[in-house]
Amino acid sequence: MPRYRLLVEYDGGPFVGWQRQENGRSVQQALEEAAEKLCGAPTRVFGAGRTDTGVHARGQVAHLDFAREWRADTVRDAINAHLRPEPVAVLAAARVDETFDARHSARRRHYLYRILNRRPPLALDRLAWQVAPPLDTGAMAMGAARLLGRHDFTTFRAAQCQAKSPLRTLDRLDVARDGDLVTVEASARSFLHNQVRSMVGSLVEVGLGRWTPDDMTAALKARRRAACGPVAPAVGLILMGVDYEDD
Amino acid sequence: MPRYRLLVEYDGGPFVGWQRQENGRSVQQALEEAAEKLCGAPTRVFGAGRTDTGVHARGQVAHLDFAREWRADTVRDAINAHLRPEPVAVLAAARVDETFDARHSARRRHYLYRILNRRPPLALDRLAWQVAPPLDTGAMAMGAARLLGRHDFTTFRAAQCQAKSPLRTLDRLDVARDGDLVTVEASARSFLHNQVRSMVGSLVEVGLGRWTPDDMTAALKARRRAACGPVAPAVGLILMGVDYEDD
Repeated sequence: MPRYRLLVEYDGGPFVGWQRQENGRSVQQALEEAAEKLCGAPTRVFGAGRTDTGVHARGQVAHLDFAREWRADTVRDAINAHLRPEPVAVLAAARVDETFDARHSARRRHYLYRILNRRPPLALDRLAWQVAPPLDTGAMAMGAARLLGRHDFTTFRAAQCQAKSPLRTLDRLDVARDGDLVTVEASARSFLHNQVRSMVGSLVEVGLGRWTPDDMTAALKARRRAACGPVAPAVGLILMGVDYEDD
Repeated sequence: MPRYRLLVEYDGGPFVGWQRQENGRSVQQALEEAAEKLCGAPTRVFGAGRTDTGVHARGQVAHLDFAREWRADTVRDAINAHLRPEPVAVLAAARVDETFDARHSARRRHYLYRILNRRPPLALDRLAWQVAPPLDTGAMAMGAARLLGRHDFTTFRAAQCQAKSPLRTLDRLDVARDGDLVTVEASARSFLHNQVRSMVGSLVEVGLGRWTPDDMTAALKARRRAACGPVAPAVGLILMGVDYEDD
């Protein structure tokens, strides 16, 4: 079975998340239906990251198998044509070896969290969390540094997280400001369920002065979900890209 | 009557444009209704630029008069509260002298046109014109330079343009690329109706290799609407800001 790798962009707003659910339309379902319209047979699409309800992607990676060979450009263009008018687009498609698995071959995932730090509501740029009081991004950066490295991230994972181990290695957690846009960039081999949003929500507590950077260390060490700050909303989170060994 | 100056952001998508119309909801109407809810009396709101149906703003400027004094922050916050859930937001409000007129006191207007130059449809960033074939932005920049300065812009104005004179002075028309995002930044004291979208549509003809930069000069000199390229769609245009003498 010829295997194809897809680079996928989507606005998570209208979806129940990446993964097929009983309770609504998922990005996976949209892609699987479009792929079936291309090849005429039910087709499963496997993604690198199971983004939650409302979470966006600029660089989700997925793979799927077809019964016959198609030109990679045809796969991209035909799936895009069948996806209309849903806010999902295949940015690139490539023929890959059957050893490639979007989820298991992934070496690193990159997320961007966007905060618009201003009092007026968001009108034009809605892919962000609006936080009205001024955020101290210097303090947030200090708090973020406390989470880098290999830790038990129990505090920062959803109660329903299905990962066997709460141990993860956080490679990057950078806080930056550009005018009223505050960004948090997070990179790791893999993340726990809700980990990025849990870390960002806690960093905002630091930015608001309610927590010190030391409180971030204490929250991490507590290894209790109740020690986490309020989880940041999905609307500001974007899966930016996934790295693979052979890239 | 105390006068207030507003800095306004909006997503033009759901509106028939800035100006009140019989055929649908305008940004002006949304603001006037919100202002009336604040002060209890019908209130007119005057804008610096009459953006068309579907055109966005990050820095529209408007003024309005109230019968009594309000704190400027109250004006901003109360209008924003009454605007919900429409995609219009007052970013700032300031008490100004009665000589200030958002339209007539304006010294320069700045527009940004965004093109996503890629084959896949737009899923996440929809505030752009999607152009699939590769654009030669170097050629576009050469074409843009031909329009700088004071000219009769009859070629680049809508047939229904109501300005008395087709003469305008174009101060800036910069073309730049960042990945697949191509931007055109235009600045002038004032623009004719549809002028930016007409210039951008013609520049895209240059970028596609259908026109040479010399064709741009010929189009300008023709002073005939029929000599214009296809008008670029509203969705990619954003009114970024308006300058005033006292700023």
